[in-house]
Amino acid sequence: MTTALCPGSFDPPTNGHVDVIRRALAIFDEVVVGVIGNPSKNSMFSSEERVSLLQEVFRDVDRVSVESFDGLLVEYAGRRHVDVIVKGLRGVADFDSELQMAQMNHHLSGIETCFVATNPSHGYISSSLVKEVARLGGSTDRLVPVEVQKALDAKGSK
Amino acid sequence: MTTALCPGSFDPPTNGHVDVIRRALAIFDEVVVGVIGNPSKNSMFSSEERVSLLQEVFRDVDRVSVESFDGLLVEYAGRRHVDVIVKGLRGVADFDSELQMAQMNHHLSGIETCFVATNPSHGYISSSLVKEVARLGGSTDRLVPVEVQKALDAKGSK
Amino acid sequence: MTTALCPGSFDPPTNGHVDVIRRALAIFDEVVVGVIGNPSKNSMFSSEERVSLLQEVFRDVDRVSVESFDGLLVEYAGRRHVDVIVKGLRGVADFDSELQMAQMNHHLSGIETCFVATNPSHGYISSSLVKEVARLGGSTDRLVPVEVQKALDAKGSK
Amino acid sequence: MTTALCPGSFDPPTNGHVDVIRRALAIFDEVVVGVIGNPSKNSMFSSEERVSLLQEVFRDVDRVSVESFDGLLVEYAGRRHVDVIVKGLRGVADFDSELQMAQMNHHLSGIETCFVATNPSHGYISSSLVKEVARLGGSTDRLVPVEVQKALDAKGSK
Amino acid sequence: MTTALCPGSFDPPTNGHVDVIRRALAIFDEVVVGVIGNPSKNSMFSSEERVSLLQEVFRDVDRVSVESFDGLLVEYAGRRHVDVIVKGLRGVADFDSELQMAQMNHHLSGIETCFVATNPSHGYISSSLVKEVARLGGSTDRLVPVEVQKALDAKGSK
Amino acid sequence: MTTALCPGSFDPPTNGHVDVIRRALAIFDEVVVGVIGNPSKNSMFSSEERVSLLQEVFRDVDRVSVESFDGLLVEYAGRRHVDVIVKGLRGVADFDSELQMAQMNHHLSGIETCFVATNPSHGYISSSLVKEVARLGGSTDRLVPVEVQKALDAKGSK
Repeated sequence: MTTALCPGSFDPPTNGHVDVIRRALAIFDEVVVGVIGNPSKNSMFSSEERVSLLQEVFRDVDRVSVESFDGLLVEYAGRRHVDVIVKGLRGVADFDSELQMAQMNHHLSGIETCFVATNPSHGYISSSLVKEVARLGGSTDRLVPVEVQKALDAKGSK
Repeated sequence: MTTALCPGSFDPPTNGHVDVIRRALAIFDEVVVGVIGNPSKNSMFSSEERVSLLQEVFRDVDRVSVESFDGLLVEYAGRRHVDVIVKGLRGVADFDSELQMAQMNHHLSGIETCFVATNPSHGYISSSLVKEVARLGGSTDRLVPVEVQKALDAKGSK
Repeated sequence: MTTALCPGSFDPPTNGHVDVIRRALAIFDEVVVGVIGNPSKNSMFSSEERVSLLQEVFRDVDRVSVESFDGLLVEYAGRRHVDVIVKGLRGVADFDSELQMAQMNHHLSGIETCFVATNPSHGYISSSLVKEVARLGGSTDRLVPVEVQKALDAKGSK
Repeated sequence: MTTALCPGSFDPPTNGHVDVIRRALAIFDEVVVGVIGNPSKNSMFSSEERVSLLQEVFRDVDRVSVESFDGLLVEYAGRRHVDVIVKGLRGVADFDSELQMAQMNHHLSGIETCFVATNPSHGYISSSLVKEVARLGGSTDRLVPVEVQKALDAKGSK
Repeated sequence: MTTALCPGSFDPPTNGHVDVIRRALAIFDEVVVGVIGNPSKNSMFSSEERVSLLQEVFRDVDRVSVESFDGLLVEYAGRRHVDVIVKGLRGVADFDSELQMAQMNHHLSGIETCFVATNPSHGYISSSLVKEVARLGGSTDRLVPVEVQKALDAKGSK
Repeated sequence: MTTALCPGSFDPPTNGHVDVIRRALAIFDEVVVGVIGNPSKNSMFSSEERVSLLQEVFRDVDRVSVESFDGLLVEYAGRRHVDVIVKGLRGVADFDSELQMAQMNHHLSGIETCFVATNPSHGYISSSLVKEVARLGGSTDRLVPVEVQKALDAKGSK
């Protein structure tokens, strides 16, 4: 049985993230979604909120579990006994930093990273762009899952 | 059990290819190395020679099988019931065309491609550069497996 | 009134090309589709066939005219009194050579090139990949307009 | 009549920006320069100052109007009834984020973005590099219009 | 006699930096390592500490001198009468901003920048990634010189 | 005394090549221009013609010598006792293949390659684009040195 780890900030989860997790499910037996506890940048949602949003989105999928973690990704991956890290690749800007990170993680622990190509029609969706659209009052319809859209609307109305 | 397909021209197989196949073995249960029968460009080695070189290199690894195929990659992948296509990514030049190919293959058949980051110290090794070095009389030591080095020397001495 | 020139080999026209021409129509008053008479690479369709396929695809759009041309693009653009050249951009591989060409054309004649972002879901479609899929017996459904699909099937059955 | 919108922070306007606006004028009938009111990063010049600098630079060009705007770019574009957004492309680093933004804006409102290639000899000029040069006491001659150079000198002498 | 300037933040110096300085030594007679006094980002080590770490690493190499500088790089290069600026290039993300900087420096002072390709096996090492690994408690072995490793450990234990 | 080798096909030499050689002269004591005897692609000019064109262009510069060579670049560099290989970098498309070549040459012989940024206003000039412009009857004025322009005109009038 092969277990894949999909790590990320997920602040908030987008349709691009959901697509990557679904692709990981098509290849691997189990998928652990690892939510970075304290991302370096100011987050809009707490790690509890981000875990809970992803759990709602995947509530009908047995083979997915969602958790938050702190510290080095490779140590968390070791504790969880995952076989591989899975990341999505949207474009060239992603590629360079993701490749660097994958090689660093391999250096630190020997773990492999495998990249899946995201659905091209999600290529322009990023969490930061979604937050900017929401902050400026635009609709996030078809950019994020409906559960996340509600949470963004709730943040906005405060 | 998860079976991965590593397709390529392998004309000739390099240390970069061997690295990608070894990484696929670290993630998946079985690896099928699919040698493209008639690559579009003039090949130095026949498809029989390329299959046989790869079989020699992996003669001690049970979980690898090497075959050649003709026609559409996705149809071959379907006939072989593989779960995923695995490709190595060296740099940005690779990335753009590989992403395009992965999205086309997903469009044609729904099959996923996953990319593994190659060992950074093999990043500059490509089959075409190896052939050019060999053709101009340079040493291919540490660029290709020793079996391939012998085959290149034999080609050169004809 | 602003007239835009969409030049290309169109061997064959793809859904990506059609998308770029439609985007040019959304911005400019008239669009001239300029089919390169003798592309440097071996073409599958003659320039007459490529013009005729594009005319069929756009038969209901008044503001599009399709022609073939020979010689320097900027001289053709000058003879046709177009205001701007329009090209689609899919990814980074495109970008570098297209930018170089745009700057060369500006140097030669002062004409501006403007790039439109293609529909992300067409990003992986190129004429050469379409020809390879067709040549290997794959379906070109949703990759090219139905008129082109028929023409590809006709080529294949010969 | 076709109206183009050239949006940006313009903190401060550079010779690269002026070149893009001039190229937009060569293609379109009217150009609206839209100055982002509150850019995310700390700005050196207020939005009033940035509008006023651009108005000075284009004081002799009838077909240009300069305004600041707040909120979503696509909503501003809708209120102003512009036909197209025009951006300059300098290099690959620009390209990826600009393409993403263009596709997001098209998703949100259907508006097209067209990219013009900037004068290659302005390719290395960015507002942030200009500010760094000015802050460290270097000359901004030939990097920004003379009006902006004066404003930078005035800021520096405070 | 040709003197090269290797400028950088070196916060902290990595094996990648050491590799670039060694390559500069293989080409040029003298190498001045110029440590940027006040990097724009928050630094982990003071400029005195960074100078002193580099001096320790190169204590046995006569032809290297290490200094810190403030203000414009090109003015410092002028005061020091260096013949050329030398930078390492790891990947495409580096390339775009480094090229822009090199062209700006040439514009400001006429000085040339020459780029050396870093050892591919150091390509994934950056100061910021090293700091993140150290901050999260990972080992920086084989990422930085042993002198720097000690300094990172000392910072961590405070 | 430091000797740099500027290798290339130079079919034909362009203003971009001349710029790179001049930049090498600004850094190094002597420059050897190494003309590849038999480039892989069909050449417009023989190696004798290409050597002779470059000699004419640099006839007033003592510190440049122009020669053709066959076989491996690194072996030629060894025979000529050059200290470093110098290449120009125009853009990202160049970068990836040039970096790969530099790392291969370092692997084969330990020789360093240093890259100089070309004048941004020459960035769009390549030998192949120049040949295409000339072949289609366009003017190569300001793209190539006047000596090369004459040679291109002479080829065309045959």
